[in-house]
Amino acid sequence: MKLLKLKLFFTAFTMLLLNNAIASIGTPKHTYNYYVPSAVEIVGKETATIYVDKNAEKGVLRAVQDLRRDIKAVTGKRLEIVHEITDISGQAIIIGNIATDPVLSELQTGNKADFSAIKGQWDSFTLQTVNIPQADISKALVIAGSNKRGVIYGIYDVSLQAGVSPWYYWADVPIKQSKTLYSKIDKPIVEIPKVKYRGIFLNDEAPALSNWTQKNHGGYNHKFYVKVFELLLRLKGNYLWPAMWNNAFADDDAQNMILADEYGIVMGTSHHEPMMRADKEWDRDGEGEWRYSTNAENLKDFWVRGVKRNAPYESLYTMGMRGREDKAMEEGENIALLERIVADQRKILQNHITDRELDEIPQVWCLYKEVQAYYEKGMRVPDDITLLWADDNWGNIRRLPTQDEQSRAGGAGVYYHFDYVGGPRSYRWINTVPITKIWEQMHQAYAYNANKIWITNVGDLKPMEFPIEFFLSMAWDPEDFNRSNLSEYGIAWAEREFGAKYASQINSLIEGYTRHNGRRKPELMSPDTYNLMHYNEANRVEQELTEMVTMAERIYQEIEQSKKDAFFQLVLHPVKASANLTKLYIATAKNRLYAAQGRSYTDEYRLLAKKLFKLDADLKQQYDQLNGGKWQHFMDQAYIGYESWNAPPVNTMPVLHEYQPHEGAEMGLQVEGEPTAFPAKSWFSLKFDSLGQQERTIEIFNRGSKAFSFKVNTSDDWLKISEMSGKVLNLKELKIAIDWSKLKAGNHKGNVQIRGTSYQRANISVEVTKIEEHIKNTAKGFVESDGYISINAANFSHNQGARGHRWQVIEGLGRTRDSSTIAVFPKTYVSFEVDEPHPVVEYNVSFTSSGTFPIEVYTLPTLKMFPNKKMRLGISLNDQPIQVIDLSLKAKGNVWADAVRNSVNKAISQLKVKTPGNYKLKLHMFDPGLGIEKIQIDTGGLKPSYLGPPQSVKL
Amino acid sequence: MKLLKLKLFFTAFTMLLLNNAIASIGTPKHTYNYYVPSAVEIVGKETATIYVDKNAEKGVLRAVQDLRRDIKAVTGKRLEIVHEITDISGQAIIIGNIATDPVLSELQTGNKADFSAIKGQWDSFTLQTVNIPQADISKALVIAGSNKRGVIYGIYDVSLQAGVSPWYYWADVPIKQSKTLYSKIDKPIVEIPKVKYRGIFLNDEAPALSNWTQKNHGGYNHKFYVKVFELLLRLKGNYLWPAMWNNAFADDDAQNMILADEYGIVMGTSHHEPMMRADKEWDRDGEGEWRYSTNAENLKDFWVRGVKRNAPYESLYTMGMRGREDKAMEEGENIALLERIVADQRKILQNHITDRELDEIPQVWCLYKEVQAYYEKGMRVPDDITLLWADDNWGNIRRLPTQDEQSRAGGAGVYYHFDYVGGPRSYRWINTVPITKIWEQMHQAYAYNANKIWITNVGDLKPMEFPIEFFLSMAWDPEDFNRSNLSEYGIAWAEREFGAKYASQINSLIEGYTRHNGRRKPELMSPDTYNLMHYNEANRVEQELTEMVTMAERIYQEIEQSKKDAFFQLVLHPVKASANLTKLYIATAKNRLYAAQGRSYTDEYRLLAKKLFKLDADLKQQYDQLNGGKWQHFMDQAYIGYESWNAPPVNTMPVLHEYQPHEGAEMGLQVEGEPTAFPAKSWFSLKFDSLGQQERTIEIFNRGSKAFSFKVNTSDDWLKISEMSGKVLNLKELKIAIDWSKLKAGNHKGNVQIRGTSYQRANISVEVTKIEEHIKNTAKGFVESDGYISINAANFSHNQGARGHRWQVIEGLGRTRDSSTIAVFPKTYVSFEVDEPHPVVEYNVSFTSSGTFPIEVYTLPTLKMFPNKKMRLGISLNDQPIQVIDLSLKAKGNVWADAVRNSVNKAISQLKVKTPGNYKLKLHMFDPGLGIEKIQIDTGGLKPSYLGPPQSVKL
Repeated sequence: MKLLKLKLFFTAFTMLLLNNAIASIGTPKHTYNYYVPSAVEIVGKETATIYVDKNAEKGVLRAVQDLRRDIKAVTGKRLEIVHEITDISGQAIIIGNIATDPVLSELQTGNKADFSAIKGQWDSFTLQTVNIPQADISKALVIAGSNKRGVIYGIYDVSLQAGVSPWYYWADVPIKQSKTLYSKIDKPIVEIPKVKYRGIFLNDEAPALSNWTQKNHGGYNHKFYVKVFELLLRLKGNYLWPAMWNNAFADDDAQNMILADEYGIVMGTSHHEPMMRADKEWDRDGEGEWRYSTNAENLKDFWVRGVKRNAPYESLYTMGMRGREDKAMEEGENIALLERIVADQRKILQNHITDRELDEIPQVWCLYKEVQAYYEKGMRVPDDITLLWADDNWGNIRRLPTQDEQSRAGGAGVYYHFDYVGGPRSYRWINTVPITKIWEQMHQAYAYNANKIWITNVGDLKPMEFPIEFFLSMAWDPEDFNRSNLSEYGIAWAEREFGAKYASQINSLIEGYTRHNGRRKPELMSPDTYNLMHYNEANRVEQELTEMVTMAERIYQEIEQSKKDAFFQLVLHPVKASANLTKLYIATAKNRLYAAQGRSYTDEYRLLAKKLFKLDADLKQQYDQLNGGKWQHFMDQAYIGYESWNAPPVNTMPVLHEYQPHEGAEMGLQVEGEPTAFPAKSWFSLKFDSLGQQERTIEIFNRGSKAFSFKVNTSDDWLKISEMSGKVLNLKELKIAIDWSKLKAGNHKGNVQIRGTSYQRANISVEVTKIEEHIKNTAKGFVESDGYISINAANFSHNQGARGHRWQVIEGLGRTRDSSTIAVFPKTYVSFEVDEPHPVVEYNVSFTSSGTFPIEVYTLPTLKMFPNKKMRLGISLNDQPIQVIDLSLKAKGNVWADAVRNSVNKAISQLKVKTPGNYKLKLHMFDPGLGIEKIQIDTGGLKPSYLGPPQSVKL
Repeated sequence: MKLLKLKLFFTAFTMLLLNNAIASIGTPKHTYNYYVPSAVEIVGKETATIYVDKNAEKGVLRAVQDLRRDIKAVTGKRLEIVHEITDISGQAIIIGNIATDPVLSELQTGNKADFSAIKGQWDSFTLQTVNIPQADISKALVIAGSNKRGVIYGIYDVSLQAGVSPWYYWADVPIKQSKTLYSKIDKPIVEIPKVKYRGIFLNDEAPALSNWTQKNHGGYNHKFYVKVFELLLRLKGNYLWPAMWNNAFADDDAQNMILADEYGIVMGTSHHEPMMRADKEWDRDGEGEWRYSTNAENLKDFWVRGVKRNAPYESLYTMGMRGREDKAMEEGENIALLERIVADQRKILQNHITDRELDEIPQVWCLYKEVQAYYEKGMRVPDDITLLWADDNWGNIRRLPTQDEQSRAGGAGVYYHFDYVGGPRSYRWINTVPITKIWEQMHQAYAYNANKIWITNVGDLKPMEFPIEFFLSMAWDPEDFNRSNLSEYGIAWAEREFGAKYASQINSLIEGYTRHNGRRKPELMSPDTYNLMHYNEANRVEQELTEMVTMAERIYQEIEQSKKDAFFQLVLHPVKASANLTKLYIATAKNRLYAAQGRSYTDEYRLLAKKLFKLDADLKQQYDQLNGGKWQHFMDQAYIGYESWNAPPVNTMPVLHEYQPHEGAEMGLQVEGEPTAFPAKSWFSLKFDSLGQQERTIEIFNRGSKAFSFKVNTSDDWLKISEMSGKVLNLKELKIAIDWSKLKAGNHKGNVQIRGTSYQRANISVEVTKIEEHIKNTAKGFVESDGYISINAANFSHNQGARGHRWQVIEGLGRTRDSSTIAVFPKTYVSFEVDEPHPVVEYNVSFTSSGTFPIEVYTLPTLKMFPNKKMRLGISLNDQPIQVIDLSLKAKGNVWADAVRNSVNKAISQLKVKTPGNYKLKLHMFDPGLGIEKIQIDTGGLKPSYLGPPQSVKL
């Protein structure tokens, strides 16, 4: 595996950590800022001179200028650029396109260097050290590309290793300072991308990006776009769908298109904008209705003008048609019409692009939303057109090539989302996608050969920096990434941007906030999300968030001043803002619950919620003021106050409840797990078992403002109450526990009565079950307690593969810190019959009761990707027959909407447990695709919660 | 009928109204404050002298002092009292007990007067004018009683007619001033009570009455009780169950018992306090457990001490036993034990009351709650013990004597409630019982011969003045009252207390607030009671209350200063406080709804609710400050903030919701009938039919604080919208109506779209049905529209009697101003078979659709009073078979709890309407008891509401 091939460019400080196993992904390390024997001295005792052919592509010449600027920014030295290799003596950097550069040809023919590995390859480059390439040149770093972009990627790779982050502009990552720079490459480095078109889509771009662009550049013009082009190239991307909500890339500024091509960016238009024409251009340049059945001639003319305009530039033509503003076409699912449209579009391409054959003009047909249904119903496009499969807008790929489709010349690609405007709810604010999730999906895209185009909707671009880089890095070489090295990627990324000291912590923060936002998008969060009653869920989540905020703030305080702005944007802000929002909802939930219960201190939570809402606004203001206001507007998107799928225009404070404690004294009382408090309810019940939760909380609160006394009576001496009497002004927490030593094995009942003011009596009936010693002593595995068994799927006890396939752990992919997902690898088309050997994982479970129990298996919201396959999961207990559940999930309907809202789908079945005792619970894989995170068995006591109960005790 | 026999004592002013048909109930008019020829001059040119025998009972002598004081208070003249008739010359008032007074004996034997009508009667009196009863006496008013109380009632009757209200002390009703007083009785007036024991129970007496008594009298001592005794006597009552929550009448103050007897009050102890011993006495004077099965000797000793103590005094002994504090007995339903208890108790009576036979000692066995079950299971007590049947604590009598039980020597009585502590919820604050309801129940008590004891739980006494007087007046002579004269009673009562000018208005206020409180007790009211969405219910109720408050406040302003205090207590306070409380809940409901919808002006309703809560407290404070603080504490009972059946300790502000409008502009929109507003919902629907509600409201509101513009598009020209565009800062109400002239008969669909800010679009699909002209022209009766037919039961078109029984209207008994109840009269034991002629009412109804439609018949929550009868109601349509529904309601369970919460029970069935057209809907009576108020048929459009939809259009 290639993972550890690169040690990042280390600063003097981090050199000390060189031996630590911090690894990254990407080009192997080749540039150092300290003396390395026999290295090319870029800036050392000598200073290298750059050679580039004067006839090199404009985009290469421009990138060379960037390289000089970057090296000067790092070292303070401005390198000389020459166009005649003979003008150089000493150290050199030789840069060129192997297809056109005479100097490189000479090196090849003179066997001084070997470029054969990238010859004829797409977008590739090689880095080599050449000794005495010319008489006067002692050593040269050769940056050779297979094409223009290959050269540029090679150049930016040197910049990157020299200490210039791709995000130096877009996220204010400081350029590392070093007086010296050395390049040492013992063996030629060869980099060839595995996905052909690797791009992003600037979408849903108002208000944030639009307001920012307007303020800083006066609109979506070339001054804005060159910054995007440069970023894309530094990230080794090559493809862009430009912003189109109220914009038309080619029409808004004629330079946009010219410069894109010059920089080396392949332009496209989004999935629903055919023939390189922006949706909004129809308003400016179209005639009649956007309706092919009635207005084909005008539409064709419109497209002809687009093709003529774009013919000189590297473009990827979107084919087909949807309705205006990305709606379904008005004609309905008219396959014949759509096939005619594509045929007519291809005639236009053929007529107006004359330098190539039609099948050499890159074309894509995006099977987005209803368009996919046309395909499934039989619509086909010519073989050379790339099929761009889409996700469900929520990061779950709807379809990948079947075995038959693999042979299509045009191949396939994937259109992915980090941001979405639509149902069940738009998510537009902040990064909510853990890279583990991206990996899990895009790994399958690659495994199933959807490798022609990877493009992802990045919303406003910021604050998606981290997942954008991950997506494009993975697009460059998916094989660099696997189910176990994603944390290492995060650490390496954090180390590159912020140094080694905090890298691991920063990675844990990014993992933490994306896990949190990923398990429920902030836009979907509400006061009801995390349960206040069961498993201490809301408090546990809040605690987790508080720990993250504390860590992030400590690092922010400690880190060098120069890194603070970048740290704020990339780490501190998303951590704090995400945490703060959840805390706002939890405070609101408590405010509402306490109001309903009439707690005297309800208002503290009303005020807390208001404070947190204000804090949210303050965080936005801090963002707006960063680096002299550079990023003002990037947080303009509203995300609090959703009433429908669509965002509110402005953040809106959640409704708060006002309870005025009366002027008297009155006992209120909440028993753990029950939101209806005394006096609205006066008979409560609690169940304990000797293997379960050992303590329950009773909250005695005041409904009035005068203190009162309470008194506890218990029916039995095995009932332990933390306090038997006391005084309450606002709140007193009592703990109930069981003195098991006073009880025989079996079931027992007792009663606790709590007397408040006047005739107030709250009664708690307590049922307890003491497990027999011998059962406890022989129990093995996850043991039933409190009415359930809960298991994190990764904690299997046995794992049986079949035909080279087996269940494996995708580390860190899960809704909770302690959970990971298991899935069967490798990703192939293999399915298994139920009665043949197939991959099985086993869990030891121990039941203390018997019966027919509901079992829920939490799965990833993975969609049914193959029309000819099911998504069967098998569940069995010991040697009982396997229950086969087909989870085939389609990207519509309520089950799907719930799955993406909750970031989890659920396989539901029942287990028959005839007698208490030890069992083996087995999960069986029959079809590819499924990922499993958690298993819970309800033996009668499972309570509602968002994340499910914590894992059961394992004996 | 006797109703019009009395014209009240009129002031000079009201003399002008003498010819108006204002009537009252009670003793015929006999005292005038103006000159009447040939009348006894009490105070005229001459002044009468009072004769009373010096050996008369102390209670009589005391009442004579009251008479002198009352006449002086009216006229300023202090009458002389003499004990020798010969000491009088001129005008005389001769007062005496016919059984003992020698002067009266002489008048009888001398044929000057005739007392034979009351001779040997219980508690009776006669008033007669006697010319020259003695030589020197020109004219005498003779007040003669059959016993001590009879004399006293006669005396107070003169006081009453002279202008002293029974409530002069307890409600500050001013004594009418007149320089002269004349008595003219052309024909002897004879008054004989029809119910033997007529009393009240001071119960649930903390905090209000207890705090007041403590403050004013230092406790429940004789200084307090004599005021109650006097009131009772002035109201012609004779029976009292004293306060017992934390009090023991006989033990707290030895004078209590002595003075009760002296005044002429028959003392009892409440239904669960046997043998004239208060529950609380057991703590002071009992030994061991309150448990007959284990502690009989101590209990017997305890009772012996009670009987010995009470033997000298007129007492009515409660027999049997319940648990302490009015709980069920711990021994369970042990009939044999209870029969033994009664037998033992009777032995004690026999042994310690030696001046009478055992069956001459008045005894009562109260069949309250579970005790009734003992009886139904066969437990019996000796025949001379009165069976006291109870209501369900909610004013619905649980049981009345069967035909067989009529012959019991002890007879039967009823224990009734105006106030209750218990489930489904205590009601303790204010008068909630319309006299129509009392009449409907107590008329049956009388009809079925439960006339030995009538006692009602009056809570703290105040503010139950009006129903107390009604109950005792009716107990005196139930035959004075009928289903049509209850408003006349109210007007006469108001005229007596406040004069004729406002009497009718005051009566309408009392009817209004008791109807309102009666349809749902204030303690049960909540923000959800009256529907904000349908039939404009909450607003209509609020409007009704506002009209009442306006009228009450105007009268308060206009009425003489001297009457203001009484008017406040008896009218203004209950009207305002009841109205204010409902307004508080409606404001709270709007606050919560508007918060959920995000209306910019939500906070106005939060502040309004707080203001109304404060107003409630202010009203209490006004009450407390009345007449120099005389009634302070009588409003100490809390009634806002119920969480369970039990009252909160202090009034507690309902939870209010806080919505902060955001700083932007955003359309919100509510369509009539749908609480979920845009943007949470974006597709709405409305249905119109040409006979139904002609206009619907669309409320366009702002969710933010900046104004926005809206624009309306309609699909069809028959859709009429009041405004097609406009600007909204807070709220804009649009009206949708249909231009029927543009439509053909039949069903049509259209669409209204309202555009708000940005991409906001609210869509209303409008379905309309235009009824064919010929259907409209031939329709007869209540016609289906908007998916229902709603009929007030009193509006029948045909009424068929059988065997002397027929449906009749009880005027004014209903939950709405326009509704009355129908029931079958007379009240007898007669039941009918379904196939024999029986009482039927018919309603003409006209259906515009066909189908099987649910029908709900709103009935009174009348209970099944006879164990051997059902409560069958029949429903039929035209000549279809009669559907027989047995409504037999028992005083427990959820159906009952809902019936008393809602003040209505519902008979539910279905109607099969095969074709649209005219039908006759019939209600059939088979068993006595039921009362019916409203009928509603759901043809598909009936919406939830508390009171049901208004009556349908009648063609």
